[in-house]
Amino acid sequence: MTTDSLFRRLPRRAVIREVGLRDGLQILQRVVPTAAKLEWIRNAYAAGQREMEVGSFVPARLMPQLADTAEVLAYAKTLPGLLASVLVPNLKGAERAIAEEAHAMLVPLSASHAHSLANLRKTPDDVVAEIGRIRAARDAAGSRVLLEVGISTAFGCTIQGRVEESEVVRLVQAVLDAGADRVSLADTVGYADPLMVSRLVEKVLRVAGDRLDTAHFHDTRGMGIANSCAALQLGIRRLDACLGGIGGCPHAPGASGNVATEDLAYLLASMGVETGLDFDALVALRGKLAQWLDGETLYGSAWRAGLPKTMRQPEVAA
Amino acid sequence: MTTDSLFRRLPRRAVIREVGLRDGLQILQRVVPTAAKLEWIRNAYAAGQREMEVGSFVPARLMPQLADTAEVLAYAKTLPGLLASVLVPNLKGAERAIAEEAHAMLVPLSASHAHSLANLRKTPDDVVAEIGRIRAARDAAGSRVLLEVGISTAFGCTIQGRVEESEVVRLVQAVLDAGADRVSLADTVGYADPLMVSRLVEKVLRVAGDRLDTAHFHDTRGMGIANSCAALQLGIRRLDACLGGIGGCPHAPGASGNVATEDLAYLLASMGVETGLDFDALVALRGKLAQWLDGETLYGSAWRAGLPKTMRQPEVAA
Repeated sequence: MTTDSLFRRLPRRAVIREVGLRDGLQILQRVVPTAAKLEWIRNAYAAGQREMEVGSFVPARLMPQLADTAEVLAYAKTLPGLLASVLVPNLKGAERAIAEEAHAMLVPLSASHAHSLANLRKTPDDVVAEIGRIRAARDAAGSRVLLEVGISTAFGCTIQGRVEESEVVRLVQAVLDAGADRVSLADTVGYADPLMVSRLVEKVLRVAGDRLDTAHFHDTRGMGIANSCAALQLGIRRLDACLGGIGGCPHAPGASGNVATEDLAYLLASMGVETGLDFDALVALRGKLAQWLDGETLYGSAWRAGLPKTMRQPEVAA
Repeated sequence: MTTDSLFRRLPRRAVIREVGLRDGLQILQRVVPTAAKLEWIRNAYAAGQREMEVGSFVPARLMPQLADTAEVLAYAKTLPGLLASVLVPNLKGAERAIAEEAHAMLVPLSASHAHSLANLRKTPDDVVAEIGRIRAARDAAGSRVLLEVGISTAFGCTIQGRVEESEVVRLVQAVLDAGADRVSLADTVGYADPLMVSRLVEKVLRVAGDRLDTAHFHDTRGMGIANSCAALQLGIRRLDACLGGIGGCPHAPGASGNVATEDLAYLLASMGVETGLDFDALVALRGKLAQWLDGETLYGSAWRAGLPKTMRQPEVAA
């Protein structure tokens, strides 16, 4: 698409996976009604979104915000061509994802030993073993649910601090060996910068190849779009985002959340990367989200100013 | 500093030029008292900032916010090692900058023909001719004020829309021929994306070499940090920013302003680019700015979450 050396690996097409329904809603105090979630999915689909993480199979008492995941997933599956994924923390959750026939299930694995112990009371290698059991259960069920492992705290951790690149690479290799279909890298706490992204993605690509195809950035310190851009520069074709930049990290109260879907859609459109997304429709949906989440802070910038005049003019021959 | 191919031209050191006192304050309705401006400069200097655009020599009736520029400049010049620049729209302003012995004067030249006519009632080539007269006046005065030309609307224009890269390159060559010491590229209206930055900077570097050393990005659509990062990836060593992300474009009401100084300082520190800046001191100064501008919206993200744990830990041997 371009001969420019910095952007020679920029993909022609990219996917923004909407994770607002899971990563965005799970840290809110309120429970968003199922009807609003279905309307969100319907509108996001109409705006061109074709991949969504619609919930999580965790015990409802732990996460009442996502207790309706089975119902939301069932609805998402009625929309032709929509890839509906769910997060599953363990084998038990994976068994539900298999039974409910999600299109994909995402198992988080924290590269930070300290974070993994604090959150799951398991070491990262315990989680690798669980991924092996999940893969076996899926295959035994004759299921074709895609198994993605999301390496969280891949760029550092609020508990442990530094996370070594070599440890991330080791864990990527381990989860692929254990049977993951693909892996993603997540900056759960907003510690990444574009140079770190570039370095780690290069190293992980060497072991995972195109089985690394997704990156997940938070915008805690305003680096989310720049980090997404660095991943795109290395050929990453799928990026997670939350409409209105909701979500984020419970350890950084008041800090902005995930990269905003609409800002990322704007970046990709401006750079000529096809997404199939309708920016104005996303901004209109953001307005609805603001009503559903009345009182919550939404983030993102592009919605205020709208598309530039240059993107509303018809292309002229060069 | 790195062997990574995308960041091989990342500079070891970079400068954030604070332009909040000019670009930030000029669009506000209020007039910030001179005493507050001096306190801003004193604190920014203490936080490590060594280049500041402190005002503009324009008629006070047109821009009362900057009517005290001579006094502010005189104060800035008392701080050892601080490079104090002023904006001058024409020869008359330049004569004042020469008389007041600013360290540098920045002449804006809009690459958009329509914008140039609407704002200055001059074509871009009229402005090139004025730059020649400014250079002659400076030399005739035996002055050593650095003459920088800022190519504004370099990535598009709210009036004209598209601005051709070839026209920007032509104008850069013309202002260098007319005697400019250096040039900067400005995305005054927030239309740029990192790919556009990469393409245009590459082309301008071919004609200007290291006389192109500054980029100026607005964050109107959330792309400011990513665009700054793209410029850094091409070896640009000086970036404009406004504390608290103030400023911006009068044509995009409510939209966020310039790149926030503190976010850019965080980006550079995280990537290991030396700036001499104290992030926490900048955040403290941002708090003062919020008081001086009580009621105005400030932007930026990094101040909320603060530095990550990894940047507060002592470096360990690899």
